[in-house]
Amino acid sequence: MASEFHERQRRLANALLHLNASAYIAEPGASAQYFGNISTASWKLSERPLLLIITPRLVNDSQVEAKVSILTPRFEATRAKTLPIPFEGVEYIEWREEESPYEIAVSALSIEGTVYLDDAARLFVFNGFQKSLPHAEVAPLPAKIKEIRQRKSNAEIELLKCANEATLLAIRAVHKKMKLGMKESEVSKMLSVALQAAGLDDGGCLTLFGENAALPHGSGSDRALGKSDFALFDCVGHLHGYFSDVTRTVALPQTRIPDENRAIWGDVLFAQTVASRVAVAGAITQDVDASARTFLELTGRGAYFTHRLGHGIGLEGHEEPYLRGGSLDVIQTGHTFSNEPGIYIEGKVGVRLEDCFYIDGNGQSIFLTEGVGGQALSPWDP
Amino acid sequence: MASEFHERQRRLANALLHLNASAYIAEPGASAQYFGNISTASWKLSERPLLLIITPRLVNDSQVEAKVSILTPRFEATRAKTLPIPFEGVEYIEWREEESPYEIAVSALSIEGTVYLDDAARLFVFNGFQKSLPHAEVAPLPAKIKEIRQRKSNAEIELLKCANEATLLAIRAVHKKMKLGMKESEVSKMLSVALQAAGLDDGGCLTLFGENAALPHGSGSDRALGKSDFALFDCVGHLHGYFSDVTRTVALPQTRIPDENRAIWGDVLFAQTVASRVAVAGAITQDVDASARTFLELTGRGAYFTHRLGHGIGLEGHEEPYLRGGSLDVIQTGHTFSNEPGIYIEGKVGVRLEDCFYIDGNGQSIFLTEGVGGQALSPWDP
Repeated sequence: MASEFHERQRRLANALLHLNASAYIAEPGASAQYFGNISTASWKLSERPLLLIITPRLVNDSQVEAKVSILTPRFEATRAKTLPIPFEGVEYIEWREEESPYEIAVSALSIEGTVYLDDAARLFVFNGFQKSLPHAEVAPLPAKIKEIRQRKSNAEIELLKCANEATLLAIRAVHKKMKLGMKESEVSKMLSVALQAAGLDDGGCLTLFGENAALPHGSGSDRALGKSDFALFDCVGHLHGYFSDVTRTVALPQTRIPDENRAIWGDVLFAQTVASRVAVAGAITQDVDASARTFLELTGRGAYFTHRLGHGIGLEGHEEPYLRGGSLDVIQTGHTFSNEPGIYIEGKVGVRLEDCFYIDGNGQSIFLTEGVGGQALSPWDP
Repeated sequence: MASEFHERQRRLANALLHLNASAYIAEPGASAQYFGNISTASWKLSERPLLLIITPRLVNDSQVEAKVSILTPRFEATRAKTLPIPFEGVEYIEWREEESPYEIAVSALSIEGTVYLDDAARLFVFNGFQKSLPHAEVAPLPAKIKEIRQRKSNAEIELLKCANEATLLAIRAVHKKMKLGMKESEVSKMLSVALQAAGLDDGGCLTLFGENAALPHGSGSDRALGKSDFALFDCVGHLHGYFSDVTRTVALPQTRIPDENRAIWGDVLFAQTVASRVAVAGAITQDVDASARTFLELTGRGAYFTHRLGHGIGLEGHEEPYLRGGSLDVIQTGHTFSNEPGIYIEGKVGVRLEDCFYIDGNGQSIFLTEGVGGQALSPWDP
């Protein structure tokens, strides 16, 4: 556990040194969790900043160390010292109510050069540091730093596999228990129970039947499953903080899906397959999106694929980089993405199929659900 | 309802015009709720920005109008159009997945000059606008704009009174039902139930007995109420989005409070009273904090008053301005603050008394709990 964090911090310290920067700073959240195990579950954001600050320290000519500090309100220091920090050597820097936390941090750590503040930080933290550093830049994160968290270690990929496999197994188990006439809310509850039974935290599924699935993020009504309806489940959960994201569009044995909708289902599956072939190390993210999109355009329904193909996944359900038009990130080993084409015809039908994948050491994409069979085979065999 | 929003927007448009600025922008949250009724309850933050944008429009020589736009992801536009907007004339601007939302907003609204981005926005939104506006500044909110939401209308003060009175009544009701030996968790549940019965949303109380109260934000253990223990309740809830915040440190009829702790209780009450006299329109926020602090220093226990005296309150439980050392804001009519001195001696005792107040039309401070008696009278008569 400690060694995984040390490795992350060492990479960060190296990047900071190469970029000639003084510090990396994050509020509690996915990045602070990645580098220091400080999530918003262990420290709720308030107007009083508690910050993870990592500064590089040159030990000798060839070795860089990361110094990890936590800036905390003084009157909450006792509680801050109970944060679940899984490594040694953290320094706590305390600011009093009448002081500027930013000035205290800058002076305690003798920060003089460029500071990188995590993208998810709130603007007032940026404004505070900018005011306290009149001669240095508070800069957006460069690719070299973002890349550290984006490219997963083997340990992280194992957790992601486990979370995504468990999610798909939960969907399959509930699919077998469904009956025509059940309400979306009822099936949604069954899925939550199944995700919890599978060991996932905060599991839940967007559950949409028939034409309700044509609004990708939900409708508001509570439809009963009809004889010719698809049922769409978009399920997430997490395991030790690592997210799953799996979508299946299914039918029951007795369901009679109209031919056009069956054709759409098949096209969406094929679009997912095409994209998984194109997504290899070295490919550009926008080209992966374009591969699925171009295929769906050839079927004549491209206009109904209304969202990007996918998102990064890890300690956040959606994180950078994204598989979308206009995105020029280069896919690298250790990257993890969702691959989720969909067709949404309002008032009629919605189909989405989603499996996440990672880029292995050979630069190939492997579905995180591969261990339990990977992609869906048919609406009856998800 | 619509008129309250129009007045807020009109003030904002006037301020923007005077500041020679092009737009005010906020993510869903307290400020977007204030100006456009878009809270995080009605639109959850995701990596895809949905933004409230208000631009000033000169109707004629003497009249300024606010143009209200909502920037939304195109594929979620149907859902965005169901947002509970209580006024007419909103324009929806849609960005496609392959576009930069910031560039779309800048071009759709012909934004050329300074843009004010709300302090609570996430840094990547700031970075995005800064990139899309190479010739204009994305600036921190100036006091003239912050002041609009800080200074409450009569309608807002009525809601705040109602929320705070209900909270105090709930505390008093539970106080009468308490018995020695009850656990913190048990009494905390009784308080939640009482707050809900009083009509408040998301009500809850930090509930700490005896020495546990010496950690202002909680301990982690679940103590049973002892014969010589104070019980401290710090309760919040909200009513139509407006927060209450009331703290009482109480004793039961049969409790035997050590003399020193009774003396501390009396000193904390007196510190609260002193501050309420000093907090008038025109006073400087740090001086109000100093008035309570100086008194507690004179009692010899100033070092145990470890936090600021108070915070603004409204659509956020804690909001600007703050009553704390180093803060130079000037108190004005319509301002609302908590007044919550406390003494915390770790391992021994914790006492805090908190009532919120507003500055009335005569510039005087009036407790929001005044309608039900205001400040506590004794540990037995909260």
